Amino acid sequence: MNSLATTEASGIVALMTDFGVADPYVGIMKGVMLARHPNLALVDLTHGVPPQNVALAGFWLERSARFTGRGAVHLVVVDPGVGTERRAVAARAGGQYFVGPDNGVWEPLRRRAPDFQARAVEPEAVPGAVLRSATFHGRDLFAPLAAELAANAVDFGALGPEIDPVPGRLLGAVRDGAVLHGSVVHVDHFGNLITDIGEELLAGQSWSIVVGGVELPLARTYAEVAEGALVALVNSYATVEVAVRDGNAAERLGVRETTSVLACAAS
Amino acid sequence: MNSLATTEASGIVALMTDFGVADPYVGIMKGVMLARHPNLALVDLTHGVPPQNVALAGFWLERSARFTGRGAVHLVVVDPGVGTERRAVAARAGGQYFVGPDNGVWEPLRRRAPDFQARAVEPEAVPGAVLRSATFHGRDLFAPLAAELAANAVDFGALGPEIDPVPGRLLGAVRDGAVLHGSVVHVDHFGNLITDIGEELLAGQSWSIVVGGVELPLARTYAEVAEGALVALVNSYATVEVAVRDGNAAERLGVRETTSVLACAAS
Amino acid sequence: MNSLATTEASGIVALMTDFGVADPYVGIMKGVMLARHPNLALVDLTHGVPPQNVALAGFWLERSARFTGRGAVHLVVVDPGVGTERRAVAARAGGQYFVGPDNGVWEPLRRRAPDFQARAVEPEAVPGAVLRSATFHGRDLFAPLAAELAANAVDFGALGPEIDPVPGRLLGAVRDGAVLHGSVVHVDHFGNLITDIGEELLAGQSWSIVVGGVELPLARTYAEVAEGALVALVNSYATVEVAVRDGNAAERLGVRETTSVLACAAS
Repeated sequence: MNSLATTEASGIVALMTDFGVADPYVGIMKGVMLARHPNLALVDLTHGVPPQNVALAGFWLERSARFTGRGAVHLVVVDPGVGTERRAVAARAGGQYFVGPDNGVWEPLRRRAPDFQARAVEPEAVPGAVLRSATFHGRDLFAPLAAELAANAVDFGALGPEIDPVPGRLLGAVRDGAVLHGSVVHVDHFGNLITDIGEELLAGQSWSIVVGGVELPLARTYAEVAEGALVALVNSYATVEVAVRDGNAAERLGVRETTSVLACAAS
Repeated sequence: MNSLATTEASGIVALMTDFGVADPYVGIMKGVMLARHPNLALVDLTHGVPPQNVALAGFWLERSARFTGRGAVHLVVVDPGVGTERRAVAARAGGQYFVGPDNGVWEPLRRRAPDFQARAVEPEAVPGAVLRSATFHGRDLFAPLAAELAANAVDFGALGPEIDPVPGRLLGAVRDGAVLHGSVVHVDHFGNLITDIGEELLAGQSWSIVVGGVELPLARTYAEVAEGALVALVNSYATVEVAVRDGNAAERLGVRETTSVLACAAS
Repeated sequence: MNSLATTEASGIVALMTDFGVADPYVGIMKGVMLARHPNLALVDLTHGVPPQNVALAGFWLERSARFTGRGAVHLVVVDPGVGTERRAVAARAGGQYFVGPDNGVWEPLRRRAPDFQARAVEPEAVPGAVLRSATFHGRDLFAPLAAELAANAVDFGALGPEIDPVPGRLLGAVRDGAVLHGSVVHVDHFGNLITDIGEELLAGQSWSIVVGGVELPLARTYAEVAEGALVALVNSYATVEVAVRDGNAAERLGVRETTSVLACAAS
């Protein structure tokens, strides 16, 4: 009996999608879950994944999932392949559960978590699940599956055969001598440039960050620079971020997602 | 004793408004409900109804309400008439409750549900409700009413006299021989064109869909066409939708809400 | 033993931030709270505070907090000073708790509530709180603190020394003879112009409102004017608002935040 066998769900379901918040799609998934188990605690991690951006969803999931605590179920529906033969996945790692399409979104998590285990799930394995539509399996399959797992009402081991999920495109910087080649993976609400240069690559040296024609030393906090000045630091995702203190770095630098970012080790 | 008399609320309140999510209005309504009954489960169906678009709210309600399950209370506040003599309504249909202004939003539901029953509610019928403002009855009356119904703390039958709600403008395609005349009722977050041509009108024939200068055969799923190609299909609302696989149909076709859409039966 | 000593939390946490809803930041804070106490009821007051607009957050808090009921905890994170020496605050007033940075956001509340009391909180006072990042104390400190207060799991009086919070910039009209000088503090989702001219300044006289080159009598409800006409009234925040019935006043008048608004007493 290993530790995986005893993971008990906490009743929390965290949702991540590319649905935005203006349409009823997220609300319908939540309605489906609450209709099954009214005592679940539902929390929106984000619905702001850009449409079909599976790689960014995987990045956010790996960087954020743990904050929802042991026993949480993560429902991740970025599903450009809905209606094709792509598989449905339930996975388990680090004391949490994960539900969504098998499209590469699990790759960052799988690489980090030694106990990652995935199963392919057919609708028949989820009590009452019916594929009513060919366009919204989030409603018809994934939400029911997440709700049953979160309520400890289905047995993870019996959901389907163990599989290796399809590999996905990984975000992340590449080292080339003293230089890390990364990119802006997201511009956040404040105009901060979120990069894929992970803190784990920065140990033991001092670095300067190059993006949009400027070079910045790596600071520790926004407040180390004057109001309105550019600053590079390690953010709460534990990746390099470029910001303007109390301002908008994306506007200042004219930079968008996928722009190249370099981290250069001090010689 | 009929089935209506025994509808027990499940403690779920689903909210639909035209308030958007940037202002505190939705949060204030939720605070009002939780202050009365902290154990309610609140779920946002959507706050993206375009301002004052009562007809679209009614369309979404009728197409989506059932997914929230038996016993749910739907709080629907699209209320251009706030402060006028328009009535407040509590209704019951299909094992669910409905609360909001009497402005036509209930019409699609009333036509579908044979057991639809509505009552006019005066503030005095809701314990503790006070019309503090002439501009936000969602806060002062409808949220309190929905909370009390959801908590099984008021008796539906005693809320007020039974009424026929005012009829509303109905969305829906019109048949003219072999052609269904519909329209784009909503452009969703993905740029998909949601039409009011219901699946129930399409039985027994094959159809082509005409919108924005293109004609498309009716497919079953996005994946039947190549990436970047236009596709028409029946969506999860059970109406005709025109999309671009992994792209944005509204941008591609230059089409917006109210654009005409035709469904033509194969000869 | 005064009434403050017996304020029991209701398990409700109301969140207000300038994070927007497209990023995972709000979801991460909620995950942190639910991981500690899964039975908390979390409600978004708004995440639409414009970036770094502490004064508007304070205005909304003072005008809206009471609707969430006795025992609610308000988590207010508009934190341009994150990573500096600015203090963390837990406060108590009117039977509710308040948590966030000490940046002036509490000033409107403090002026209104005679029983306002604030304490400076060090991370060590919050069980398990660790400042993992220098950029997101909402996640690392304020969310844990709010959760523990909401669950009645920490003793307010033991959180830290009593302090006077730093004073903040106050929104609010200034009287000059028969004229109140105010401003547009927010344009809401409907294009309504929310001003800082409080109803409490308007007693006992009739007023006309001047903004964007027009002068309007103060009405009671939107419906007193024809569809498409401008109207000034007291809104649900109990301040003067200028609107277009079923239309958009900001677009009509070309008016934005900080535009000057006058209220002139009838002679």
